[in-house]
Amino acid sequence: MNTSLASRLHEGDPRAVGRAISLVENHDPAGHELLASLDRERINQCLVLGITGPPGAGKSTLTGQLIRCIRERKMRVGVIAVDPSSPISGGALLGDRIRMMDHALDRDVVVRSMATRGRLGGLCGAAGAAVRIMAASGCRIVIIETVGIGQSEMDIVSLADLTLMVLAPGFGDDIQAMKAGILEVADLLVVNKSDQPGARKLFLDMITVLRDPEEREQRIIETVASEGRGVAELLERVLEMEAKQRSQGLFQRRRDESFITETLDWAMELLAHPLRERIRRTASTETDPRLAAEHLLRNILK
Amino acid sequence: MNTSLASRLHEGDPRAVGRAISLVENHDPAGHELLASLDRERINQCLVLGITGPPGAGKSTLTGQLIRCIRERKMRVGVIAVDPSSPISGGALLGDRIRMMDHALDRDVVVRSMATRGRLGGLCGAAGAAVRIMAASGCRIVIIETVGIGQSEMDIVSLADLTLMVLAPGFGDDIQAMKAGILEVADLLVVNKSDQPGARKLFLDMITVLRDPEEREQRIIETVASEGRGVAELLERVLEMEAKQRSQGLFQRRRDESFITETLDWAMELLAHPLRERIRRTASTETDPRLAAEHLLRNILK
Repeated sequence: MNTSLASRLHEGDPRAVGRAISLVENHDPAGHELLASLDRERINQCLVLGITGPPGAGKSTLTGQLIRCIRERKMRVGVIAVDPSSPISGGALLGDRIRMMDHALDRDVVVRSMATRGRLGGLCGAAGAAVRIMAASGCRIVIIETVGIGQSEMDIVSLADLTLMVLAPGFGDDIQAMKAGILEVADLLVVNKSDQPGARKLFLDMITVLRDPEEREQRIIETVASEGRGVAELLERVLEMEAKQRSQGLFQRRRDESFITETLDWAMELLAHPLRERIRRTASTETDPRLAAEHLLRNILK
Repeated sequence: MNTSLASRLHEGDPRAVGRAISLVENHDPAGHELLASLDRERINQCLVLGITGPPGAGKSTLTGQLIRCIRERKMRVGVIAVDPSSPISGGALLGDRIRMMDHALDRDVVVRSMATRGRLGGLCGAAGAAVRIMAASGCRIVIIETVGIGQSEMDIVSLADLTLMVLAPGFGDDIQAMKAGILEVADLLVVNKSDQPGARKLFLDMITVLRDPEEREQRIIETVASEGRGVAELLERVLEMEAKQRSQGLFQRRRDESFITETLDWAMELLAHPLRERIRRTASTETDPRLAAEHLLRNILK
């Protein structure tokens, strides 16, 4: 194993963080050895904060402001920006936007982009590994930011200890369609752009989603991320919620579930390519995908 | 096998369509037999049209208007509405909205909702089966509508013969982040709400994405779906593109790829539950998900 990489990583060298994540993403055996050697205590102390919501809600701006507030508290922070655009045609824009925001020269702000395109499985696993690498490098908080509200975003959210759902006025009826999903994944609802028309209506809509009056107070927060308004309060709320969940044991239970999800995701990633190749070779003889899949599995499983 | 269900399905009975899809979704062996007996010729003749784009772009309204135009041409049409909200907490809203739109009493408009939440794999497979069932029931066009721009939406799009990406003004910079992804999946770009501020800028932005002048003309269409404007022209463009791709053999090549994707997705669905249970039993002994996954696969593969 590359011990100097491991020690540079644990000393907080941002380039060592990037190198370690690349090794894992490229399935380099040195990366896997590194993963097994990471400081478990730091991983346990780190808070993994998911930030999700529809395009245009202001997630990147909010993330930039959260980084500022986290840094004001002298905490090291990592950001994993999960981007639906492809690495081939010039993706990784979320990460670029965050990087350009003010923190480019701050070695305690570590940013990594990951593309969802072209993957079948493997994103949760890779993102989970990146989280642990950043945590082991000393990040007190690792933010996972995703665009979109699809299933892969939901899966990534399952890696987070706490999840913020960022909404903003102007999405019309689609917000209604999202409500149920929002409730299931969001620990905190952020009504961003709260100075814009329709923000009050959105806030009240979200209030009706939460039935418990106590919850309303705790779980909905208004921000104007472009001006930094409400962001320090949001971070405060996040850290309070973390402390509460740690003391209740909920934190560890979610971590245990994440472990299962990540392991399953890695298994799927490792299986996808050989299975696809096998299907390609045998496809012409089958008449229906469901039957073809059953036939395939009969032939490969013990 | 339930031969009366198969014959009612091929006669176009909408309830038989719904029943058949439910059988497949519930893994009922009768459903799989039915899939193997579907009219292959009708499946080949059917056009599978994917409609995707960010929340708030007006996809449901556009879908409703497209249904109207398709029905004016006396074609039977199916709609599969893929909804990120959960079936538990009252999801299936996309499908409800479309159903309520005017076509509730028209037996040649068949609508089915599918939820993405809580699935790990299996959505492509289930959606693909629903497409074939609707096609066999006589649908000349089956529309797959998805909310979101995540990976599972992209996977579903891979089932489509042609894909429309619907955009509208008001998404700000996130449109830039989506550009690359848009290019890779969209056969046609629809700039909806083209009467609203910012629509011209969006149209020009999209023009710059397409370098070939001939492509611009063919691939970008402006609509005001709420008033039905531009929708008949859009359908015309879709049918022209279908005819062209069929004559060039591209249509069949995409179908062959879809078959592989669906088969792989079914295989993943069939594997996910047993793998997850096995991980749950053995998880505590492992230290890293990547290593746990490798260990797992060594033990189950031939």
